[in-house]
Amino acid sequence: MATLGLIEYKDASPEVRAVYDDIMATRKTDWINNFWKALAHDPVTLKRTWESIKQIMGPGALDPLTKEMIYMAVSISNQCGYCTASHTASARKKGMTNDMFKELMAVVGMANETNSLVSGYQIEIDEQFRT
Amino acid sequence: MATLGLIEYKDASPEVRAVYDDIMATRKTDWINNFWKALAHDPVTLKRTWESIKQIMGPGALDPLTKEMIYMAVSISNQCGYCTASHTASARKKGMTNDMFKELMAVVGMANETNSLVSGYQIEIDEQFRT
Amino acid sequence: MATLGLIEYKDASPEVRAVYDDIMATRKTDWINNFWKALAHDPVTLKRTWESIKQIMGPGALDPLTKEMIYMAVSISNQCGYCTASHTASARKKGMTNDMFKELMAVVGMANETNSLVSGYQIEIDEQFRT
Amino acid sequence: MATLGLIEYKDASPEVRAVYDDIMATRKTDWINNFWKALAHDPVTLKRTWESIKQIMGPGALDPLTKEMIYMAVSISNQCGYCTASHTASARKKGMTNDMFKELMAVVGMANETNSLVSGYQIEIDEQFRT
Amino acid sequence: MATLGLIEYKDASPEVRAVYDDIMATRKTDWINNFWKALAHDPVTLKRTWESIKQIMGPGALDPLTKEMIYMAVSISNQCGYCTASHTASARKKGMTNDMFKELMAVVGMANETNSLVSGYQIEIDEQFRT
Amino acid sequence: MATLGLIEYKDASPEVRAVYDDIMATRKTDWINNFWKALAHDPVTLKRTWESIKQIMGPGALDPLTKEMIYMAVSISNQCGYCTASHTASARKKGMTNDMFKELMAVVGMANETNSLVSGYQIEIDEQFRT
Repeated sequence: MATLGLIEYKDASPEVRAVYDDIMATRKTDWINNFWKALAHDPVTLKRTWESIKQIMGPGALDPLTKEMIYMAVSISNQCGYCTASHTASARKKGMTNDMFKELMAVVGMANETNSLVSGYQIEIDEQFRT
Repeated sequence: MATLGLIEYKDASPEVRAVYDDIMATRKTDWINNFWKALAHDPVTLKRTWESIKQIMGPGALDPLTKEMIYMAVSISNQCGYCTASHTASARKKGMTNDMFKELMAVVGMANETNSLVSGYQIEIDEQFRT
Repeated sequence: MATLGLIEYKDASPEVRAVYDDIMATRKTDWINNFWKALAHDPVTLKRTWESIKQIMGPGALDPLTKEMIYMAVSISNQCGYCTASHTASARKKGMTNDMFKELMAVVGMANETNSLVSGYQIEIDEQFRT
Repeated sequence: MATLGLIEYKDASPEVRAVYDDIMATRKTDWINNFWKALAHDPVTLKRTWESIKQIMGPGALDPLTKEMIYMAVSISNQCGYCTASHTASARKKGMTNDMFKELMAVVGMANETNSLVSGYQIEIDEQFRT
Repeated sequence: MATLGLIEYKDASPEVRAVYDDIMATRKTDWINNFWKALAHDPVTLKRTWESIKQIMGPGALDPLTKEMIYMAVSISNQCGYCTASHTASARKKGMTNDMFKELMAVVGMANETNSLVSGYQIEIDEQFRT
Repeated sequence: MATLGLIEYKDASPEVRAVYDDIMATRKTDWINNFWKALAHDPVTLKRTWESIKQIMGPGALDPLTKEMIYMAVSISNQCGYCTASHTASARKKGMTNDMFKELMAVVGMANETNSLVSGYQIEIDEQFRT
């Protein structure tokens, strides 16, 4: 029930197809997930978002799997079901094992717990943390 | 202005001191940050939280630095200033470079952006992501 | 599976029907959406919420469509699926075109991204912004 | 640095003073906190918000202290510093002891932790919970 | 579609069964809800989480029903559908009436409203609230 | 106390200066706010973020002031103090009057309230809203 519907490859304009093609080539898959098919209604946002993600999620000082798990941590905390499902799938594809997933979840859970403890106890930042 | 104030080492009960000692020994530091000094008003929560964090944040399938950056990602998305400051400091101590920080931030920013795009476009989970 | 179920017009008390009637008259529709049918279990909250929304969402310094899009922006960022669906429908009825929707989404996405960048980079408010 | 500044009693219009007077009488205090002084720029919202809060926070099926602690739980999870400070003060005035505060915080922390565990493990609602 | 699937009692290891048994004995039920069956993939987190919840949610300075409603308030504000469904069911079992639920909701709604008013009006904490 | 500090114009690299120059020219101001000075540590993110914002926030199907108010609504709901301060300043500069601000806030408050009511009452999406 995506707001504007989903644009399939066969119905896409050349500029949208170019993005779809790059997504499939970069990810070495033969399908496009709904996120891109929905964004395709706005080719400018589609292109900007894909190019940003492609650049950001590639290898750098952090490896792609670590980045994917950071993406998961944010999506999970934001209660974004779609994002959690899609980035968990991506992380697995990039090598996340069950043990890694379980440790990730333990950290995410603990972070959310202590974030609220800090808020409720109204804790001020230590001088030592102010750089 | 912590709600219940902060409990310094010299004023702490033996059970609280035992936790403080373990924190300093584990982290190889000679001071305790405000989070623990505030939680010390509730020794049961102090002990439970510290023992959980100690266990969760140690080495495992994920290395401690990766865990610290996941902790940061959650804290940053939750707009928890204290947590961001303290876990950024911890991550640096565990080896996070400026380049790693900047890539982490780019991922966190992008994740928060696409989480809201997914929400607004009302995108349904692809069959392929339902395992 | 609304917690307390939904109260249909035919089963509603006179005070609830009065609110339903006003909703339909104000919105020029012949049906009541689930939000109100669920709230109807608490007639005081139903009446207070409806009267507040009726007053707040009407024309003023901001036109009703702008208000509806602001409502959408909040609902989307909060990952509230129901609210996003219902206020997107309302905004369309008030004249939101596809182009307006796409621009709204680009802004919402960017705002969520930069909100987290600000949080992670721990940026202090400029003197110039403190009025 | 409140956006529109704060309106003190001596500078307030009669309609704003009437709300201020009711706040002080209801709360048995002789001062008005900044929240109301800021909202006073919008007398309609001031009056609506105060009357709603007065009605909602009074005794009913839940006692006023329980309501205040529920208010705290939300404010803490939302990382709203002002709201946490003001409602913690209100709860203390209504009888919240240190022990009650500490138990409240333990529950809030645990809830935030498990909320994210549920999100990350992508757990579906049990048939038994669907009423 | 839980990420790692659900572990039923008959397929559980002895350590997981021990936790399941304690959950059912403590709650006086004969079934285990999906949350625990998903967490069971990580027996350490399962055991830690259950023991923490068992300790935190038991009677103390706050009664178990009050704690359950605080848990609900957090889960509702976080838009966690599963958590809302499961803790609403728990609260009912512990005695939450429809009237209590409706008052809880009115408080939760008002808290979320005023949290954002405070944020938008950029209100500073009153000296009187700084203890 | 920005994590990496702030980069002033005089200390900036040519590529950063080029972005600073474009920001000042576009906004017709002679100063750069802290957000950009912090991001400048990551010139790639600086450039990408500025170019995205410049493109997104310009005139289109929605006028720049409406976009700025949508940005505010998100920032306020996210409890991002810096973002609220800076985008409120921008909105004023683009013509937001006090009356518009007050109406914006009333809508943002109401949206956050009803978002949580929907969550707590566990309301399902009406068939009519599923397009």
